[in-house]
Amino acid sequence: MSKTAKNQRQNVSKLAIAYSKHYEGKMQTFPKVPVKSLDDFSIWYTPGVAAVSLAVAKNHDLSFQYTNRWNTLCILTDGSRVLGLGDIGPEAGLPVMEGKALIYKYLGGVDAIPLPVNAHTSEEIVNLACQIQPAFGAIHMEDIASPKCFEILDSLRERLSIPVWHDDQQGTAGVILAGLLNSLILTNRKISETKVVLMGAGAANIAAAKLLIAAGFRQDNLLLVDSKGILYSEREDMDQLMLQNKWKYELALHTNPDMVTGGIDEAADGADALIAASQPGPHTLLPSTLKRMNKDAILFALSNPVPEILPREAKKAGTRIIATGRSDFPNQVNNSLIFPSIIRGVFDVRSKAIPDEVIIAAARELARYTEEEGTLSEEHILPTMMDWDIYPQVAAEVGEKCVRMGIARVKMSREQIHERAKEVIEKSKKMINAVQKSSFIEPLSVANRKIK
Amino acid sequence: MSKTAKNQRQNVSKLAIAYSKHYEGKMQTFPKVPVKSLDDFSIWYTPGVAAVSLAVAKNHDLSFQYTNRWNTLCILTDGSRVLGLGDIGPEAGLPVMEGKALIYKYLGGVDAIPLPVNAHTSEEIVNLACQIQPAFGAIHMEDIASPKCFEILDSLRERLSIPVWHDDQQGTAGVILAGLLNSLILTNRKISETKVVLMGAGAANIAAAKLLIAAGFRQDNLLLVDSKGILYSEREDMDQLMLQNKWKYELALHTNPDMVTGGIDEAADGADALIAASQPGPHTLLPSTLKRMNKDAILFALSNPVPEILPREAKKAGTRIIATGRSDFPNQVNNSLIFPSIIRGVFDVRSKAIPDEVIIAAARELARYTEEEGTLSEEHILPTMMDWDIYPQVAAEVGEKCVRMGIARVKMSREQIHERAKEVIEKSKKMINAVQKSSFIEPLSVANRKIK
Repeated sequence: MSKTAKNQRQNVSKLAIAYSKHYEGKMQTFPKVPVKSLDDFSIWYTPGVAAVSLAVAKNHDLSFQYTNRWNTLCILTDGSRVLGLGDIGPEAGLPVMEGKALIYKYLGGVDAIPLPVNAHTSEEIVNLACQIQPAFGAIHMEDIASPKCFEILDSLRERLSIPVWHDDQQGTAGVILAGLLNSLILTNRKISETKVVLMGAGAANIAAAKLLIAAGFRQDNLLLVDSKGILYSEREDMDQLMLQNKWKYELALHTNPDMVTGGIDEAADGADALIAASQPGPHTLLPSTLKRMNKDAILFALSNPVPEILPREAKKAGTRIIATGRSDFPNQVNNSLIFPSIIRGVFDVRSKAIPDEVIIAAARELARYTEEEGTLSEEHILPTMMDWDIYPQVAAEVGEKCVRMGIARVKMSREQIHERAKEVIEKSKKMINAVQKSSFIEPLSVANRKIK
Repeated sequence: MSKTAKNQRQNVSKLAIAYSKHYEGKMQTFPKVPVKSLDDFSIWYTPGVAAVSLAVAKNHDLSFQYTNRWNTLCILTDGSRVLGLGDIGPEAGLPVMEGKALIYKYLGGVDAIPLPVNAHTSEEIVNLACQIQPAFGAIHMEDIASPKCFEILDSLRERLSIPVWHDDQQGTAGVILAGLLNSLILTNRKISETKVVLMGAGAANIAAAKLLIAAGFRQDNLLLVDSKGILYSEREDMDQLMLQNKWKYELALHTNPDMVTGGIDEAADGADALIAASQPGPHTLLPSTLKRMNKDAILFALSNPVPEILPREAKKAGTRIIATGRSDFPNQVNNSLIFPSIIRGVFDVRSKAIPDEVIIAAARELARYTEEEGTLSEEHILPTMMDWDIYPQVAAEVGEKCVRMGIARVKMSREQIHERAKEVIEKSKKMINAVQKSSFIEPLSVANRKIK
């Protein structure tokens, strides 16, 4: 990291602590209904509420109509892999989950409840998620370590009748897919012929590999590289993998049919795209490695806070399209581009699940957006969070897909879903802006004076 | 129920369903912090939030300072005894929990999260509450059947380092105690000499008996009556009780030393006060029973929707002070008078628990309020929810007691706690009123036109 970047980082850290203390948390609850006098509680509470409860008792699906369940999501974490900080525990995960809840409300109009928990084995977390299901319209897993996150996601997808989403898997994979699809357009490549190397085999890249395959990439065109080198079906740790990480094991069985051995250099030979989600750089990837890739190479260097190699170094080494996880470089691969709209979409049609087909549809819509806007270029393979339109647009695609797949609880047309998503998101944003102009939320400028 | 009352009830039920559907739920989430542009997420989310998480990882208590945990409460239910509706399940409990969350925000400025769960044994519920502890500043148990609610409360009080509150036990018991204390003043009785009969031995009355004893009532002056008659230490079902309901068993051992047998009539002989929390009336209690009580008798007939005997009938039978659970009769024994302020108080000093001493202090403060206001009379033994001042005042008493008992995480003076509680409650109320005047919450009058 440069000295300036380090200073900025320290500054933002200091501010984050000072502001967190000053505002005493980022999210609160707030009524959706009018209360003019205490008499109104006879409707919102007893005796009136008894009739609502009895109706829901007869038909549980009515809980999505008569309560805010339809728009309420649980952000579930055990704090076992918080940001890049590792296993710092549930209490320490809470500030991050609150931030995520803020983004959910701001970008997607979603009511998200942080739930960091003292539950650590896959079994405990799955059991807990099943128990809390009646309170929520969806479960969002966040910052749960791999490989247990794979088992938890698979198991919950099977057992819950509400959508489950693991942002570090599906969110990242969805945005990677969207960015990759547009990169292929720019470099005139076909999905079925593109050779992709995935460097790092944690939650993001395992999920990305699976999603790419589901989206039409050929598994025999994929290579995965972990800390022990290139994965292949006869690598000496296969027995161990089979027991400890069956998701990685499965990919080892079906990728790399030529059994290429070696490290990232050997893997890069003849590769079209390299997706790195491994260790922070700036020297995790070397220019000499990138030079081994095909012409018009595509690089996603996604580690934070510093990409595996800095974009200018990659450019110098001949890479044509470069994306990172950072907002201060072009082409940010950012989960926030997709999770608020996927959840908005499944919520608006009361979907029971988020199958891979839905994520792929969302990724394609995200990619299409840039193309349709006419802004697609090497430095702009993805929209940014400033492109507000993408949220209702992707939500409409998601909702329509769920309706078509028969997993939606309500039937709506694409236009209706789009309209509804737009309405919910805009109402949320307008209310936030209006309240911010009032005295109820102190502006940062005023807070600054008090903090100093 | 009279015909008019029945019509009103049906009307309020119809409205509750229509409004619930129209507003799509009663509570939402909302930001507490300003977001002017997406750049602000670098403070509220990554990279800034990492520093906040690291600080909390080192000292978990900082989660009460840097996040909204200090003001966030979980309303936990398994839906096993929802209102008077019985075991209708967690989904059906959600509308009630949402209503409770609304009351919490409106009266106490507390951010309450409804959490109806598919966990049913004591062990499962205790385990779940321990797991979710990192997300919350307190756990509020609601509508959980007895006797398991006793075991869960005892166990959680032991295991959690945040306050736990069971409204159907402690809330009801606290308000009963407050009302009884003022009734004794009006009838010139001493606590130590007052004979109290408790009719019904569910969550409310078992908790009331225990709290009365802790507050100075003599256990040998108490009689409990359940469906099998008066409890005493040699009743034939004692072995069974010992196994199935040790809380009732303990009371059977220590109350009724004269081993009075029989039913409510025999129990009423020579009683000063009768607390009925049994079956809805209006003929559960007969005038002839009340006539057996001492002069200046005190009756709390708490069943809903209809008290065990209607106040005018009890009056005719010579009862001097009559309280019910209903807002349309004088002297409503209403949990909402106490739970928002007890939680406000423990939250403001970051208390680790709510011992009985704190509940007794709150009840005494509640009783004192009416006396100090000079409004104490036979028809006004308790304040009403319209007496806004009681909330910060009781919160101050609660907070001070916690500080004195050494269970508060921060040390504050009574004045500071009072000031803080008032500020939080008033801010919450002002913001609700301001938003209601805007277009973001549709008035009932507008909703009415759309519904019809």
